[in-house]
Amino acid sequence: MTKPFIHPPSSEPATFASANPDAKEFAGAPRGEALRRYRQVRAQSLRIAAPLSAEDCMVQSMEDASPVRWHLAHTTWFFETFLLKEQPGYTAFDPRFEFLFNSYYNSVGEQYPRSKRGMISRPNQQETCEYRAHVDRELIGRLEGSELSTDQQRILEIGLNHEQQHQELMLTDLKHALFQNPLEPAYEELTFRDHNAVDAIHWIPFEEGIVSLGHEGAGFCFDNEQPRHRVFLEPYQMADRCVTNAEFIEFMDDGGYERPEFWLSAGWDTVQSNQWSSPLYWNRENDQWTQYTLSGRVPVDSQAPVCHVSYFEADAYARWASQKWSGARLATEAEWEHAVCTGEPSADDFAGNWCDQLQASELPVHPRREGKPRFNTGLSGAFGNVWQWTSSHYSAYPGYEAAEGALGEYNGKFMCGVFVLRGGSCATPSGHIRPTYRNFFSPESRWQFSGIRLARSPR
Amino acid sequence: MTKPFIHPPSSEPATFASANPDAKEFAGAPRGEALRRYRQVRAQSLRIAAPLSAEDCMVQSMEDASPVRWHLAHTTWFFETFLLKEQPGYTAFDPRFEFLFNSYYNSVGEQYPRSKRGMISRPNQQETCEYRAHVDRELIGRLEGSELSTDQQRILEIGLNHEQQHQELMLTDLKHALFQNPLEPAYEELTFRDHNAVDAIHWIPFEEGIVSLGHEGAGFCFDNEQPRHRVFLEPYQMADRCVTNAEFIEFMDDGGYERPEFWLSAGWDTVQSNQWSSPLYWNRENDQWTQYTLSGRVPVDSQAPVCHVSYFEADAYARWASQKWSGARLATEAEWEHAVCTGEPSADDFAGNWCDQLQASELPVHPRREGKPRFNTGLSGAFGNVWQWTSSHYSAYPGYEAAEGALGEYNGKFMCGVFVLRGGSCATPSGHIRPTYRNFFSPESRWQFSGIRLARSPR
Amino acid sequence: MTKPFIHPPSSEPATFASANPDAKEFAGAPRGEALRRYRQVRAQSLRIAAPLSAEDCMVQSMEDASPVRWHLAHTTWFFETFLLKEQPGYTAFDPRFEFLFNSYYNSVGEQYPRSKRGMISRPNQQETCEYRAHVDRELIGRLEGSELSTDQQRILEIGLNHEQQHQELMLTDLKHALFQNPLEPAYEELTFRDHNAVDAIHWIPFEEGIVSLGHEGAGFCFDNEQPRHRVFLEPYQMADRCVTNAEFIEFMDDGGYERPEFWLSAGWDTVQSNQWSSPLYWNRENDQWTQYTLSGRVPVDSQAPVCHVSYFEADAYARWASQKWSGARLATEAEWEHAVCTGEPSADDFAGNWCDQLQASELPVHPRREGKPRFNTGLSGAFGNVWQWTSSHYSAYPGYEAAEGALGEYNGKFMCGVFVLRGGSCATPSGHIRPTYRNFFSPESRWQFSGIRLARSPR
Amino acid sequence: MTKPFIHPPSSEPATFASANPDAKEFAGAPRGEALRRYRQVRAQSLRIAAPLSAEDCMVQSMEDASPVRWHLAHTTWFFETFLLKEQPGYTAFDPRFEFLFNSYYNSVGEQYPRSKRGMISRPNQQETCEYRAHVDRELIGRLEGSELSTDQQRILEIGLNHEQQHQELMLTDLKHALFQNPLEPAYEELTFRDHNAVDAIHWIPFEEGIVSLGHEGAGFCFDNEQPRHRVFLEPYQMADRCVTNAEFIEFMDDGGYERPEFWLSAGWDTVQSNQWSSPLYWNRENDQWTQYTLSGRVPVDSQAPVCHVSYFEADAYARWASQKWSGARLATEAEWEHAVCTGEPSADDFAGNWCDQLQASELPVHPRREGKPRFNTGLSGAFGNVWQWTSSHYSAYPGYEAAEGALGEYNGKFMCGVFVLRGGSCATPSGHIRPTYRNFFSPESRWQFSGIRLARSPR
Repeated sequence: MTKPFIHPPSSEPATFASANPDAKEFAGAPRGEALRRYRQVRAQSLRIAAPLSAEDCMVQSMEDASPVRWHLAHTTWFFETFLLKEQPGYTAFDPRFEFLFNSYYNSVGEQYPRSKRGMISRPNQQETCEYRAHVDRELIGRLEGSELSTDQQRILEIGLNHEQQHQELMLTDLKHALFQNPLEPAYEELTFRDHNAVDAIHWIPFEEGIVSLGHEGAGFCFDNEQPRHRVFLEPYQMADRCVTNAEFIEFMDDGGYERPEFWLSAGWDTVQSNQWSSPLYWNRENDQWTQYTLSGRVPVDSQAPVCHVSYFEADAYARWASQKWSGARLATEAEWEHAVCTGEPSADDFAGNWCDQLQASELPVHPRREGKPRFNTGLSGAFGNVWQWTSSHYSAYPGYEAAEGALGEYNGKFMCGVFVLRGGSCATPSGHIRPTYRNFFSPESRWQFSGIRLARSPR
Repeated sequence: MTKPFIHPPSSEPATFASANPDAKEFAGAPRGEALRRYRQVRAQSLRIAAPLSAEDCMVQSMEDASPVRWHLAHTTWFFETFLLKEQPGYTAFDPRFEFLFNSYYNSVGEQYPRSKRGMISRPNQQETCEYRAHVDRELIGRLEGSELSTDQQRILEIGLNHEQQHQELMLTDLKHALFQNPLEPAYEELTFRDHNAVDAIHWIPFEEGIVSLGHEGAGFCFDNEQPRHRVFLEPYQMADRCVTNAEFIEFMDDGGYERPEFWLSAGWDTVQSNQWSSPLYWNRENDQWTQYTLSGRVPVDSQAPVCHVSYFEADAYARWASQKWSGARLATEAEWEHAVCTGEPSADDFAGNWCDQLQASELPVHPRREGKPRFNTGLSGAFGNVWQWTSSHYSAYPGYEAAEGALGEYNGKFMCGVFVLRGGSCATPSGHIRPTYRNFFSPESRWQFSGIRLARSPR
Repeated sequence: MTKPFIHPPSSEPATFASANPDAKEFAGAPRGEALRRYRQVRAQSLRIAAPLSAEDCMVQSMEDASPVRWHLAHTTWFFETFLLKEQPGYTAFDPRFEFLFNSYYNSVGEQYPRSKRGMISRPNQQETCEYRAHVDRELIGRLEGSELSTDQQRILEIGLNHEQQHQELMLTDLKHALFQNPLEPAYEELTFRDHNAVDAIHWIPFEEGIVSLGHEGAGFCFDNEQPRHRVFLEPYQMADRCVTNAEFIEFMDDGGYERPEFWLSAGWDTVQSNQWSSPLYWNRENDQWTQYTLSGRVPVDSQAPVCHVSYFEADAYARWASQKWSGARLATEAEWEHAVCTGEPSADDFAGNWCDQLQASELPVHPRREGKPRFNTGLSGAFGNVWQWTSSHYSAYPGYEAAEGALGEYNGKFMCGVFVLRGGSCATPSGHIRPTYRNFFSPESRWQFSGIRLARSPR
Repeated sequence: MTKPFIHPPSSEPATFASANPDAKEFAGAPRGEALRRYRQVRAQSLRIAAPLSAEDCMVQSMEDASPVRWHLAHTTWFFETFLLKEQPGYTAFDPRFEFLFNSYYNSVGEQYPRSKRGMISRPNQQETCEYRAHVDRELIGRLEGSELSTDQQRILEIGLNHEQQHQELMLTDLKHALFQNPLEPAYEELTFRDHNAVDAIHWIPFEEGIVSLGHEGAGFCFDNEQPRHRVFLEPYQMADRCVTNAEFIEFMDDGGYERPEFWLSAGWDTVQSNQWSSPLYWNRENDQWTQYTLSGRVPVDSQAPVCHVSYFEADAYARWASQKWSGARLATEAEWEHAVCTGEPSADDFAGNWCDQLQASELPVHPRREGKPRFNTGLSGAFGNVWQWTSSHYSAYPGYEAAEGALGEYNGKFMCGVFVLRGGSCATPSGHIRPTYRNFFSPESRWQFSGIRLARSPR
């Protein structure tokens, strides 16, 4: 039976806004809450870096990734640049950092080349921590003194969400960095238990209709999630769970990486020139697939969701899978958001009981939360396991306006040639997840915890 | 006053199908019509090459472009491979051409590297013409003998549309090829007359609603124009004409190419690394902008539509222009198609009276037709002047299915990282233009006759 | 027994100078001789191009190679630029050619990019011949009218030798160009006969001593062959013939291309990144090695000298061969020149009776001359078969001075990172060969007719 | 007056061997001497790293350079691999290091990619020091126990010289690494005093004759310095000192970097594509040239020798200088070695009194020694200031044989396309310098302390 079409064109997804305790804007919120959250988020970054040596925090494995220490400095730079710099009485920790730790804000000025972030040894780890402490001291003082305007509180919230994004990157970049070392060192040693066997995919049907897409209400969101607007969806079906390693190995065993008919043209070129034959981090040893994790190399768990695949692989898998499930394909981001927002309550959503224990164990700093799910959806594993590639290129919503000034460079200028991922992964800070969140990466990217959820057009 | 919202969700754009005499499928059409059209299209390719020397037809200026002679051979290969090869009694002209002139069809087999097409001197011009004559003889014989099945007649029609696409590329590739020569030779010498002054942009408003998008009915279309499906449009406005050279020069004079705030991140990188400071083919000499055309170098006509701009430049121009026209941006392809299909009749549409005389003169083999317009739209210059960049990435329509077999590689596998252009340029064969046609190029491409039409979101 | 050490420090290699009828400088020679030679050399270039289509003359297969038509134009440009341009009453054929056909003379001005020579379709073949005719007419008129000064006659001689160099490049570049075509077309169809079996290498010993190196006397030479100077040679031995294909196949069969211990570091990198496993133009089909020649693909003749090997391969072969012949290595250019100049007369030298019939047949326009050898040496195949890589980097002779002005850019500025080849190949115009001639190419170059002659240090 | 020609063909440069206290081979030397020297050299590497943070020791600025920590590990790997690995009872510190710290020894096995050395964070600084201690303990135990054979003692000596080479690279690579940081941090803060004004260049003449080149006698040398052999030198002159910054600025002010006529073809390409306009590390601020040093940025001292120039710049300077000094050019390595070995005693040689105080101050760990010069030569600053580019490509001496086994890969396989530098710089450990030493780098390299000494051919 088809699910009822429940969203009137301009309905409000009230459940989400209220379900997200972290999402309250500071503007208007009690001062103490802003302080508490600032301290918590800033501390979390240091907690991620805690098990690492100064050397580990130096490595840059590719232009797309950055050293952990750079993340620690750049997130601090963000607060200094956009909040403190123009505060009365503020003295910059080191005025040369404005150039050194600017990532891509042309409005702020020139930037140190991204590809060379791994060549910066000073400020070192200790000095970077002092930089963080300096900025924290200055900012907390002003927060306690109620000196921040409403606008500034809004920027503070952006800065905290910005830092949470970088917390995820710290982990994914670090994983890629340590992987360059043939010793394959572990971030933290943990033991694993295998997943229980999962059931066959169940297809949840959705009727056609006009739905509303994008963020609305009181909670925080980035500018690219707005404005809320209407789209028309033709009828479709969504898989109730993500594709497993066992299912992806079927594709591999069927020659998936050798058969151009499943691939986009650019995807096939990528497979050929990089000689891809499995997801990133996988090796085959004695007829057994293994994968590198932040706890070192372990066997691939057949029942866990496949992870570290590019858009090209997700798309090729879907095309191959349409032989089995007629009409199978990746979902659009509109379909994904709509499906998530109309689901029936499900005890296992976001609580991670189906969730990939393997990936979870990579991230002991983000234990899966127990108990009541935050989001009510029939889709298992929608949040907090693997990001789910959608078939949607990352484009502006109708009526989109980038923020004013330098912060307008945050999202809009990347709307070209990349694809949207939805959900959130085991590396995403849980307070940073929401159904309208639009993550985006280039189609060949594999170093994020990215996986596959299928959709179908009925035929 | 806002235009009425006239398209019910599944309406049929009957006007287009019936207005297009070339669009009838051969399947079911009188045999004589297929023959006539085959002869006409094939002759047109030779007519384009007629003013050229054997040397001119050899040049490949970049990987994206191909020599004219390669186009002559590859379009012939298409008919041979997909129609003749399996016909009883057919003998291949040279079986090695299967590899040599395959563009990108992995299902057919390996391909000679695209970047080396300019290194092939044999078959030469004369032998290539013999190859064409051989295939024409064989195909016409079978057409006259009624030996083609309905399916084969469908493929014949695809082959003719394929050849028309290559006719446009012959001209754009040739322009780029001759431009590499510091002598800047002309394809044909013509005289120019300047445009009349154009009026200020008039914004045509459209109401919100569900509209149908994509091709329907009897006429020919490519698989990527289907299935016809519904989309919801928020209210928007369309510019009644394209941006002129004078308007684009305003952007340049305002530092457009030096101000990163107008550019996509990848666009700004492209501007920097290629040191772009004007549209392709433009030079500045003694305070006067000139442009290279197929008739040699001529002054830039301030009233003609700007041409040979990339998506990056179109997008940056729109962002700059939103300072003048609040909410200005590029249109989505859905907006463009809807606007074109709901327009009031206009005598000048497609007849080219506003049309760029400069570009028209580059293409004397495609004279603008006089008299009654084929498409009824309030948008001047929608067809046959410059392709108009839309803000839409090129993605599959919901329910899209690629054609079976090798021809399924025609469109779908390129749905990644490129943008849709709509309309058609002065280099597009007029019988090849229709409102649902989806052209697509990478965002840095400039060698097509591509320009800018603005849209707006009301605020 | 060791050969006597016959060269006193400043002896003159009189035999060479007098044996070379082409080597007389025009300065001082009868006017008719200059005219005859000018006509002969200029006609030869056209004769090489005669079997080719306009398309064949367009192809540029890589940056190092040029289209045949470019060679025809550039050699003409040389006479126009360095001789005619400043002659009273001379009008340039087209003043824009100064830029277009300048190869690398910074003193003359900017140059059209080398990598784009294949993108120039105009002037076409016909117009290029008219350019040649124009310059010939002007130059011959002045020669007949005795209007050329002694200096100008010297430049004329350089121009003719320059054109002869380009005649060789026309053939080697053309071979590489046609090879890009999977049809592997032939320049001219010829039949082949196999070589007779050759004897085992015989090692000719030379005593230590001071020898003179470099050109001296009346004949023409380039500036890099001067000044004649003294070098001290330790005792050494020279192989009486070049390495054969059979001998090189032994190296290949012994894993030569898979064993890094035989290779220079840069050579091994080149082998790996280009996946070399045989000389250029070779294929293995059904257990039989074949090679592409200007007459199409033919079996490799085991007794012919190996050809189309790079310096890296020549050097690796020598290191491998030192297992068999202790001390085997490539000769220095001093050893090579000394060995050639002290040899006993040998009927087969330069007459090509041992010579590679295969290669000879590639170049029917340069039939091997019969009868009396021009150079008296015990080394078989020293001239006119394959260029022989020496172990000498290309450096200035002590006291070397580049010519004044633009012609000083001819040789000296390339003395960096390339290696000297000696002798001359089956593609070298025979009147262009002399024992002091220093050819030079980068160590990875393989498209010249380059082979291997071994030397040894006694142990 | 011309210096007497004092070297008979096979003379022995006795003075050098006996003057070098460090050069005694351990084979035959008292055990205690080997122990003392091993401890001294190994300690010196750690002393160089002492002022650095763990982060500083991580940076790799380009493929040619390596992190300091990699140098510390690789030099240890050398002893472990070539000496300890096959010793009875030896247990590898970590068997995976064989791959990880192999630089380029194919005979030992595959190597971790050179370009990724900066991506290795483990073993970290602490663990690397433990690795060093482990190998030191094992080796010293065996040295004390007299368990090393004569062959092994020879390898030990190679290992120490190898480590000394890397000590120089630690400093040059570190300088380049810190320079990537826009903060331009200092390795150690020092004060500078300016040079005294130097006299005009004095040209020391040398007569023609046969001289002996290469190492002979008891001291240590690398295989590429042998065998000692004879060469013939035409008469020449040598500059008594290196070119100063003031002299090089004259070249710059005369348009040296903008005039192609002074440059090798590859040099000019390098200047253009890298936009060189001064030596490496130089900036122009307020009409004053400054240079980055290991003590931070300081003004350029006009009287100090120019440093951090490539072969291309040295060669271009010489060609420019020949306008002033007819026949000026770079010396060959034979001329350099002969000139140094025939000089009259000079109190300032090697003692550094003329020596570049600026560079010296970069290297406080290598203070210039006072008192009696080690080498008797009329050439001031021949040793220990700047390496001096010679015009000689790096090639094998006649009769050269690479060492057996993996150590044969040390030198010979790089004899391609690079140029020889002679002397030694302020960064070279003084015990590592000798007149026959052949350093070699690619012609575009500038990050070594490399400068210019002119020679002349009399005209």
